[in-house]
Amino acid sequence: MDRKCIGIDIGGTTVKIGIFTTEGEILKKWEIPTRREEGGKNILGDIAESVKETAKEMNIALSDFVGAGMGLPGPVEPDGHIPFCVNLGWKEGNPQEELSSLLDGMPVKSGNDANVAALGEMWRGGGIGFKNLVMVTLGTGVGGGIILNEKIWPGMQGVGGEIGHIHVVEGEQESCNCGGKGCLEQVASATGIVRVAKRRLAADPGASSLREIKDLTAKDVLDEAKKGDALALESLEISCRYLGWALASITMVLDPEAYIIGGGVSKAGTFLTEKIQKYHDELSPMATRKAKVVLAELGNDAGIYGAARLILG
Amino acid sequence: MDRKCIGIDIGGTTVKIGIFTTEGEILKKWEIPTRREEGGKNILGDIAESVKETAKEMNIALSDFVGAGMGLPGPVEPDGHIPFCVNLGWKEGNPQEELSSLLDGMPVKSGNDANVAALGEMWRGGGIGFKNLVMVTLGTGVGGGIILNEKIWPGMQGVGGEIGHIHVVEGEQESCNCGGKGCLEQVASATGIVRVAKRRLAADPGASSLREIKDLTAKDVLDEAKKGDALALESLEISCRYLGWALASITMVLDPEAYIIGGGVSKAGTFLTEKIQKYHDELSPMATRKAKVVLAELGNDAGIYGAARLILG
Repeated sequence: MDRKCIGIDIGGTTVKIGIFTTEGEILKKWEIPTRREEGGKNILGDIAESVKETAKEMNIALSDFVGAGMGLPGPVEPDGHIPFCVNLGWKEGNPQEELSSLLDGMPVKSGNDANVAALGEMWRGGGIGFKNLVMVTLGTGVGGGIILNEKIWPGMQGVGGEIGHIHVVEGEQESCNCGGKGCLEQVASATGIVRVAKRRLAADPGASSLREIKDLTAKDVLDEAKKGDALALESLEISCRYLGWALASITMVLDPEAYIIGGGVSKAGTFLTEKIQKYHDELSPMATRKAKVVLAELGNDAGIYGAARLILG
Repeated sequence: MDRKCIGIDIGGTTVKIGIFTTEGEILKKWEIPTRREEGGKNILGDIAESVKETAKEMNIALSDFVGAGMGLPGPVEPDGHIPFCVNLGWKEGNPQEELSSLLDGMPVKSGNDANVAALGEMWRGGGIGFKNLVMVTLGTGVGGGIILNEKIWPGMQGVGGEIGHIHVVEGEQESCNCGGKGCLEQVASATGIVRVAKRRLAADPGASSLREIKDLTAKDVLDEAKKGDALALESLEISCRYLGWALASITMVLDPEAYIIGGGVSKAGTFLTEKIQKYHDELSPMATRKAKVVLAELGNDAGIYGAARLILG
């Protein structure tokens, strides 16, 4: 029987689990709730139990698995040690060792969820064919993951790929969550796009369909820009230029093959990536072969794909 | 007899050559002129002859060398192929293969000179003890080299580590050599430091010892800043903030252990690196363990050290 692997993506609300062939074909995926109460002490036990049950139903012995990969919402050191994991209520520990022993010694490897998602997109998503790429997740914040030679590059302290906190805005007065002022996240995340739009509307008295919308969202800004609203479009160009600028800076450092754009904001499609590509290219004239800015394809499943790929080494 | 290795650093005027132990102790170093005439067709032959002569004088058989490393002033592909090398008059070719055959099949490996210098500083210079670092060379331009896991990271098209062309200045009107506007090099190289100082002097009518100096150099700006000239100091802070900003961006991407500052401008010592460190730290608040900004130590020998290290793999 061909061996299988397991991908686990632990989020603050649900744990996504998938069973894959070693070629990356998904055989089964499901979710269980993340029980964060009591310092999240049941989370790993719940996962182990659910994996064992499902394996039994599928007639797969635990020994038929190459192992399990796991994405965690926080920094993970190379040996799997974590300093803490706020979203899960965990303090210091080594969850990959714990899960391994709960799964009768099955090999388990873990990584930061943004990095793991990048690996998933490389394996079976928008990054197929690339071995060196940077994934950018445009959601509530701006996350990132760096893949070099088909492996995650986590950096010395897990800050590698935290591209939402590249400084781009001079003179910004409001603070970012990280403590800085002028981070990419403040102008290019879903909330950042709204922030830029509101400032643009406040600065320019011109007519705009955005003015009619209560509780403005990034989707509104993107939708109205697509429809041709001038102020929405101008505002979006500002956000996309900051994004393209940050990616151009990465190009002058890493010179990757591609940038994979994911997260809720990326639902705007090539309307968005073409703008990012334009500014990236403009701001990295020295790179004659331009890295491609492409859309992520796996959506919320990138984490389980990447986790499964992680254990394959 | 312990085996030896050879480090070769080919510049536009001279070729530096060194013979090293495999531990990085230098046994002999010398220079020969770079004969660029006739498309630089004699350069590799001259090197081979000079290496053979010196080896003979030192009673070392060619077979006692592990091999030779070579730093070239231009982009080098992983297999040693080069698209061109303007400074040497070379067109497309594979100089490492050519030199190998001129040295009776001795293994030869080549890399871009800035990257190779970074490797040298890691091996025996300011980067001893670090395996992941970024070297920044502040000379006429701003060069860079990236070392990850003790290896050069050249990027997909050799643009990796070209940190002088990270965009940092918004609204810049003059063009950089690369075709961009607002590159780090335009404000932080030796010429960039002078440029910033002249603009500062033009914008502020205040007294400054810099006004007395004809043909202002970066050294003048640094010297007068050290002596306490207010405008020189303000101007230097501007240049150092741009440098610290670019390094902070790299920290959010690669999260390295250290930045090694070399090149002529770095002769200003810790007076310079402390300022760069301050701005780097300020603009990367998310990195709690700060990468160290330290001085390069090998000066013009970094290239031969790095080239020798390159062939050791």
